[in-house]
Amino acid sequence: MNKVAVYRKAHFNAAHRLHNANLGDAENAELFGKCNFPNYHGHNYELIVKLVGEIDPKTGYVYDLKKLADLIDECVIEKMDHRNLNLDVPEFKNLNPTAENIVVVIYNLLREKIESKYELKVTLYETERNFVEFPA
Amino acid sequence: MNKVAVYRKAHFNAAHRLHNANLGDAENAELFGKCNFPNYHGHNYELIVKLVGEIDPKTGYVYDLKKLADLIDECVIEKMDHRNLNLDVPEFKNLNPTAENIVVVIYNLLREKIESKYELKVTLYETERNFVEFPA
Amino acid sequence: MNKVAVYRKAHFNAAHRLHNANLGDAENAELFGKCNFPNYHGHNYELIVKLVGEIDPKTGYVYDLKKLADLIDECVIEKMDHRNLNLDVPEFKNLNPTAENIVVVIYNLLREKIESKYELKVTLYETERNFVEFPA
Amino acid sequence: MNKVAVYRKAHFNAAHRLHNANLGDAENAELFGKCNFPNYHGHNYELIVKLVGEIDPKTGYVYDLKKLADLIDECVIEKMDHRNLNLDVPEFKNLNPTAENIVVVIYNLLREKIESKYELKVTLYETERNFVEFPA
Amino acid sequence: MNKVAVYRKAHFNAAHRLHNANLGDAENAELFGKCNFPNYHGHNYELIVKLVGEIDPKTGYVYDLKKLADLIDECVIEKMDHRNLNLDVPEFKNLNPTAENIVVVIYNLLREKIESKYELKVTLYETERNFVEFPA
Amino acid sequence: MNKVAVYRKAHFNAAHRLHNANLGDAENAELFGKCNFPNYHGHNYELIVKLVGEIDPKTGYVYDLKKLADLIDECVIEKMDHRNLNLDVPEFKNLNPTAENIVVVIYNLLREKIESKYELKVTLYETERNFVEFPA
Repeated sequence: MNKVAVYRKAHFNAAHRLHNANLGDAENAELFGKCNFPNYHGHNYELIVKLVGEIDPKTGYVYDLKKLADLIDECVIEKMDHRNLNLDVPEFKNLNPTAENIVVVIYNLLREKIESKYELKVTLYETERNFVEFPA
Repeated sequence: MNKVAVYRKAHFNAAHRLHNANLGDAENAELFGKCNFPNYHGHNYELIVKLVGEIDPKTGYVYDLKKLADLIDECVIEKMDHRNLNLDVPEFKNLNPTAENIVVVIYNLLREKIESKYELKVTLYETERNFVEFPA
Repeated sequence: MNKVAVYRKAHFNAAHRLHNANLGDAENAELFGKCNFPNYHGHNYELIVKLVGEIDPKTGYVYDLKKLADLIDECVIEKMDHRNLNLDVPEFKNLNPTAENIVVVIYNLLREKIESKYELKVTLYETERNFVEFPA
Repeated sequence: MNKVAVYRKAHFNAAHRLHNANLGDAENAELFGKCNFPNYHGHNYELIVKLVGEIDPKTGYVYDLKKLADLIDECVIEKMDHRNLNLDVPEFKNLNPTAENIVVVIYNLLREKIESKYELKVTLYETERNFVEFPA
Repeated sequence: MNKVAVYRKAHFNAAHRLHNANLGDAENAELFGKCNFPNYHGHNYELIVKLVGEIDPKTGYVYDLKKLADLIDECVIEKMDHRNLNLDVPEFKNLNPTAENIVVVIYNLLREKIESKYELKVTLYETERNFVEFPA
Repeated sequence: MNKVAVYRKAHFNAAHRLHNANLGDAENAELFGKCNFPNYHGHNYELIVKLVGEIDPKTGYVYDLKKLADLIDECVIEKMDHRNLNLDVPEFKNLNPTAENIVVVIYNLLREKIESKYELKVTLYETERNFVEFPA
């Protein structure tokens, strides 16, 4: 009856730049400060994926964390690791790659591969001091 | 009216092996991979116990964390630290010691010692990258 | 529709002593042990502030974390960093500076500066092993 | 002329038990306490491998850390991960698997695969609080 | 022949204030800034004690880390934990409790209890970002 | 007589790409793998600066760590934080920004601002698992 949450941590290293193409340079600089510098900067992103479900009595698992790790690799790490989020990842072609937008993109990528019976939540650390979570 | 959550972290070192005695060796190997190796492996388990309640105006505490630490020692650490979960801990005689099952066992051990007015949640780290929580 | 949580971590170093002025010395010593020693001790407090809201499509932010960091500095760090909580911080003149009481004080300081449309939660680490959260 | 040190971190999970087969049970229990419990316990071992050498002007590397990671996998992780050090790893057949002895074994395994022009040092964390280094 | 280093981590929480009684208030304020505030602040001090020696073939230990932990408790933690370094610890009666001076005091306390055949080094973290080591 | 080491930790976020302009694309791809991807990736670089010297009896400091923090900001963080190392930092115009080369550049930037009586060492974490130190 009561459910258990399982968590798997992963990471990727990427470049990005905060920029809204619909706004002028001065407004972008004001809104995003150093994060708007033209030649990109980057982060070691840390990702925590949480699934909630019931324990399978056969395995004692809610979800095989090895399988979850492989899924995160396939859906997220392959796409974003050692990449420039603005230039290389189609999801950010017209979407500013803030931590908030990245975490929603990652959630959507995983959500379509994980059966709906599992509740899903994603936490993304951009730095040790700044992090985000979706859904809240 | 509003409640505060208090958390206490503890740890123990234990050996275990994932194995379902109702299944054959081949199926166990396939389900659990390296975690099924016959001679056990082990972990530094990290445990976080969360209690939710109201602040006692006399002490300023929700729950004396020294008392909580002692309770965790008595109920959990004494039983599991430097032990083989499969062989030494009766709760796992017929229960596969996955992180999910361990966290539920720990929750139940603590739940009977902590007054019902406190909401209780337990988080268990098996490795830095794999962890579980009960109830979710 | 779905909301995103954003988190900002900060820290301050302060002295404090647990003591209830309405109780005698023996009872204080019994209730608070080493935390009641008369000449104060201290901690590196770690603070995590969580806001929940919707992503602003213009910025891609729920809340500018640089602005949140500045707000935490102004409201909390300026007031508590390198201070003696019992002697220097008026909020604790008649309130025992337990982690539980500190986190509620910090929540209230921030709550009045952050628009009500944002849900707010504060986590405070007193040590790596003892921490609290408000509201729970 | 001046040399640079490069470090690579890895980890493995293993069971072990401290026991000197030349001593009686009582002496073993006295020497090793809980670490001598008969059914093994275990750890998340963290390993840091340090190489010192000159920067290769072609690559800008002292040593390709991807190659070092692969070497650690082959020589150490394959042999020890998810294993019982006492029963499964031949080097400990007649050698007590204390952190000190494990770190020397790991050093020797790596030393024969790494050219002698590189200085080598290995650090091994048994727990967050207990760790060892060889050579000192 | 080759020696192994063993490390043990401990911690204590203390209040202190940087102040040189031979200097005036203005000079103290200028030299030490917020660290000179009159009512003290405090830290979660993290301590790492390193001993270097040969492996004892009987135990496989350089030094029993349980014994080292007890020694650190007796010599350092008992004296400094939950104390005001300036007021409660005689060594700082006429010595400014900077991290540098504290680490030398701790080294001296331990050095007289540890046989001279072991090389000793002490690292002290005042915050996650500021730390010191003696001897260098 | 005996010297004390003091350490200060800092961090910066930067984009980079490993590439040797004297080599062809195929050889660059083979040497550097994902780190050679054309549009850059990035890291949260963690920097630890170590100075060794004698304690000044007036202050109790080897070196004022606030002053050291400011110096690191001026010489290193201003130049590299939120920048593209290959494009924005002149030192890497003809130098491949591997961790090894970055740590030597940082050492040289600091060495000219720190009096020669202090021994200087710099550690640079590119990820939690890969780090370098100069001089070794």
